[in-house]
Amino acid sequence: MRIVRYDIEGREGRGVIEPSPTGDLVRALGSDEKGDNTAGAVIARLDEVTLLAPCDPRTIVCVGSNYASQVEEKGRPWPDRPALFLKSPNSVIGPEAAIQAPPEVERLEYEGELAVVIGKLARAVRPENAMDHVLGFTCANDVTAHDWRADGQWARAKSADTFCPLGPWIETEPPDSGSLTITTRLGDRAVQQSGAEQMIFGVNTILAYVTRWITLRPGDVVLTGSPAGVGPMVPGDRVTVEIDGIGSLPNPVALRRAHDRTPGAGRR
Amino acid sequence: MRIVRYDIEGREGRGVIEPSPTGDLVRALGSDEKGDNTAGAVIARLDEVTLLAPCDPRTIVCVGSNYASQVEEKGRPWPDRPALFLKSPNSVIGPEAAIQAPPEVERLEYEGELAVVIGKLARAVRPENAMDHVLGFTCANDVTAHDWRADGQWARAKSADTFCPLGPWIETEPPDSGSLTITTRLGDRAVQQSGAEQMIFGVNTILAYVTRWITLRPGDVVLTGSPAGVGPMVPGDRVTVEIDGIGSLPNPVALRRAHDRTPGAGRR
Repeated sequence: MRIVRYDIEGREGRGVIEPSPTGDLVRALGSDEKGDNTAGAVIARLDEVTLLAPCDPRTIVCVGSNYASQVEEKGRPWPDRPALFLKSPNSVIGPEAAIQAPPEVERLEYEGELAVVIGKLARAVRPENAMDHVLGFTCANDVTAHDWRADGQWARAKSADTFCPLGPWIETEPPDSGSLTITTRLGDRAVQQSGAEQMIFGVNTILAYVTRWITLRPGDVVLTGSPAGVGPMVPGDRVTVEIDGIGSLPNPVALRRAHDRTPGAGRR
Repeated sequence: MRIVRYDIEGREGRGVIEPSPTGDLVRALGSDEKGDNTAGAVIARLDEVTLLAPCDPRTIVCVGSNYASQVEEKGRPWPDRPALFLKSPNSVIGPEAAIQAPPEVERLEYEGELAVVIGKLARAVRPENAMDHVLGFTCANDVTAHDWRADGQWARAKSADTFCPLGPWIETEPPDSGSLTITTRLGDRAVQQSGAEQMIFGVNTILAYVTRWITLRPGDVVLTGSPAGVGPMVPGDRVTVEIDGIGSLPNPVALRRAHDRTPGAGRR
């Protein structure tokens, strides 16, 4: 099942994608009194709605230095445990929303990643049970202001508005997460490409480690790290994170203006 | 006005405190179609309800090294801009909820702070208009696992469950924020005490700096830094952050057990 959040004429909703010979459709997704998903009426054709980030996370935990290729490329020490950092909810945007480059930042970087979306409250989960707490997977771009890493703590560097594109949907029945290939393209050029089996810590291990201290709730997101090939992007670029068997997350890059309103995932 | 979130017999609500000769009362707080607060019926006596964290933030931005006394005590360089880091929403608890010390942590520290609660969407605000976006002030304890600062990024060190006590209420008409005195007590002993005029960056400057990149929404929280005297606490201790003119935030410290359910602010 592919779960989307959409906007149609200013109304937001959750839906599932239904393949159709004349173009994919979006069917409304509700929930019954038990909290289980229920399918409703067909809302629109997929190409008629604006896709939002497919979930509205409160807590976003990220793992740094989690690909052998990136650790080797950067000459970093091999990690003995997942290196965690946070992104904040204000940074979330959906597919095709503009990544806003702050004018003060000299080097803005893309980082294509596999994102895990939590489905059930996860606290101190065991690695072997971790997948019971996962709703599905989506693509993420861990946008980073390279200059601002010098702050020490990465709040500005990783959590400025629009620095966490997510989407296009949550794939609830992906191929085995260890067999996925992640490709980041800048325009048409592939700039990152790696199999997820190159992860140093796999999804189960990461979820067990994080939830030992940080309880994750439905809709929360874990970013699993970026492979080698992280590099700069500039206003006018178009960056796409693609994961085979999941989907494709395209975002244009624009210059942030001082008084732009930020789209934001939630539009609350 | 003092705004609380409360739990009474498993039902949650928002209320305002109404002084009464026979003991303070809690009056229900609703909102009209314009989103303005409206007062409802008296719910209970204040001492009959369990107070939750007074807001349910998504984004929590904190300022480190923001008191002259702390910078001098720790021998840190004088900051030329606010040093930002994040706490995640899973860390929020209310007054009297237990701060859970992870058994792996050798040194768990209290940090008493003044917290700013956002009332209106704040993006690229000017310092002189910053207070228009503030709902009020509350007390915070920026609980920190000192050992885990060695991770580099402070996700575990600052955002483990229960590491962000907030409360007891949001004071919407405090004395001038520059004239407040913050006192942290361990048991009966005052371990931190400082006037907020000792802040290196004041509330207006912090809000202007943060919202240049990080949009804050109603209910989001900014922690303004802790004065000298940060120190350790252990299970069995009782720590209280008190700000005159605002209120008092007491929390016991307990050992975290592997399968404790976390209270959490939202209980969603």
